[in-house]
Amino acid sequence: MRNIDEDNITDTFMGYMGSDMDPRLRVVLGCLVKHLHRFATEVNLTHEEWNKGIEFLEKAGRISNAQRHEFVLLSDVLGLSSLVDMLHSSPQGTSSSVLGPFHIPDSPPLPLGGDLRKDFPDPILLVKGTIKDPQGNPIPDATLDIWQTAPNGLYSSQDPDQETYSFHGIQSVGDDGRYAFTTLRPVEYTVPTDGPVGDILRACGRHPWRPAHLHFIVKADGYKTLVTEIFSADDPYLDQDTVFGVREDLIMRYQKMQASSFPDEGYDLSGKVDEPYWKVVFDLTLVPID
Amino acid sequence: MRNIDEDNITDTFMGYMGSDMDPRLRVVLGCLVKHLHRFATEVNLTHEEWNKGIEFLEKAGRISNAQRHEFVLLSDVLGLSSLVDMLHSSPQGTSSSVLGPFHIPDSPPLPLGGDLRKDFPDPILLVKGTIKDPQGNPIPDATLDIWQTAPNGLYSSQDPDQETYSFHGIQSVGDDGRYAFTTLRPVEYTVPTDGPVGDILRACGRHPWRPAHLHFIVKADGYKTLVTEIFSADDPYLDQDTVFGVREDLIMRYQKMQASSFPDEGYDLSGKVDEPYWKVVFDLTLVPID
Repeated sequence: MRNIDEDNITDTFMGYMGSDMDPRLRVVLGCLVKHLHRFATEVNLTHEEWNKGIEFLEKAGRISNAQRHEFVLLSDVLGLSSLVDMLHSSPQGTSSSVLGPFHIPDSPPLPLGGDLRKDFPDPILLVKGTIKDPQGNPIPDATLDIWQTAPNGLYSSQDPDQETYSFHGIQSVGDDGRYAFTTLRPVEYTVPTDGPVGDILRACGRHPWRPAHLHFIVKADGYKTLVTEIFSADDPYLDQDTVFGVREDLIMRYQKMQASSFPDEGYDLSGKVDEPYWKVVFDLTLVPID
Repeated sequence: MRNIDEDNITDTFMGYMGSDMDPRLRVVLGCLVKHLHRFATEVNLTHEEWNKGIEFLEKAGRISNAQRHEFVLLSDVLGLSSLVDMLHSSPQGTSSSVLGPFHIPDSPPLPLGGDLRKDFPDPILLVKGTIKDPQGNPIPDATLDIWQTAPNGLYSSQDPDQETYSFHGIQSVGDDGRYAFTTLRPVEYTVPTDGPVGDILRACGRHPWRPAHLHFIVKADGYKTLVTEIFSADDPYLDQDTVFGVREDLIMRYQKMQASSFPDEGYDLSGKVDEPYWKVVFDLTLVPID
């Protein structure tokens, strides 16, 4: 094609793709480019605006590394990550919610009843529940990958003062599908605003806050992996999460408990709790692989 | 919003934008996100595919630097750059065509009749023409920023064996709007295929070739800057430029000339040409700023 114009460029792009390429890639890339072209045409995108877009992508590339994932953050604040979550959430199971840019692989094992709070002085939060199938039967071989920020609102990967796996652990559930651990109540925090995604938030007059939450990845053989978060019911940002992660079924409610009610056994902290603590019971439902 | 779903996430995103933000940014970003969401929904984008997209962007960021602009190349091979060119080309003027990722600023002055060929042994190409307005009047204060590859198909910024400004120059036209310089016939070449954009081309069964061309940026006070390329009429890739840059009015035709016809004066090479050479006459038309 030498006489390419705004009306035929998308078809020309499609025509350039080879006949023996992966059919799914053809569909995905073709649809992406169709919408990219429509976007540029609808807004009559100028060279100056195109340039700003390129500069944005280059800046995001420069700030990214193994710990900092600016493109994930971009996807998060534009709602793309949450949309993908919704497209693949099953109404039979717990809603999925954004992985976010701070997950790190290979967290250390956290025994049933194990503790993540360590030496932090804030009140204890006991979190427990059951990993179930949609019929309510426990799934005994599930694992729960858990992570959250420290009380300063930073994940360990953002904070040189924390150990690598501070507030991270992977728990294998009990034969009855139960998980249980102690930690601290999560805090609301801002997504990183020192990069180009922060520039976008400021330019849009958007705040960078996320409501307090615990992150989970729940895996079990024969079930779809669930990437999710559970949110504090009393958080002021619950209705305006800057990454669009909140779903009604992901809201956890704290119960204030007396020290004397802390379980006598089965927890790292059994016998060591002498102040009121918080408790959350939250069941998680996995759906079978089709 | 806590009950965000696939149907309301785009509106929720729009609602997050502040009332006092730049109105054009609201339109551009809103339209971009609308199409991003529609794309994900139409193809039912999976987490695995989302991950591949993020990995692609991170790879493109890692390979980019002041000389290597992988995101520009991405925009080029997806047809976005050419689409933006077309949206802002005026039928009254010469078509614009992709800037490409290899332009470098601040090329040295190239006097009228100056030479870019230097010591390369290939036959001389004499390029001349007039910078005009749509009525055909010459524009005397125009400048022409010129760049092309060496005969090995590499721009100086890609090739440690070339000097920084090899085959680069900025010419101020004469009082009669005329430009003129000597160089070599450009060669067809491949876009860089050692990065993630090369992976896309391979996965799509696409070749990486561009037809031979000279790059120009033409500037003059009171006129829209013209970023364009002119293409060799006999090039085998004229109908399948991998970055969609070719327009009918940008095709140049070479005339084979005898050495004796080379101008006696006004060129660096006057008096030094003793072999047949090639000649192209190509006028460029700028449109006034509205």
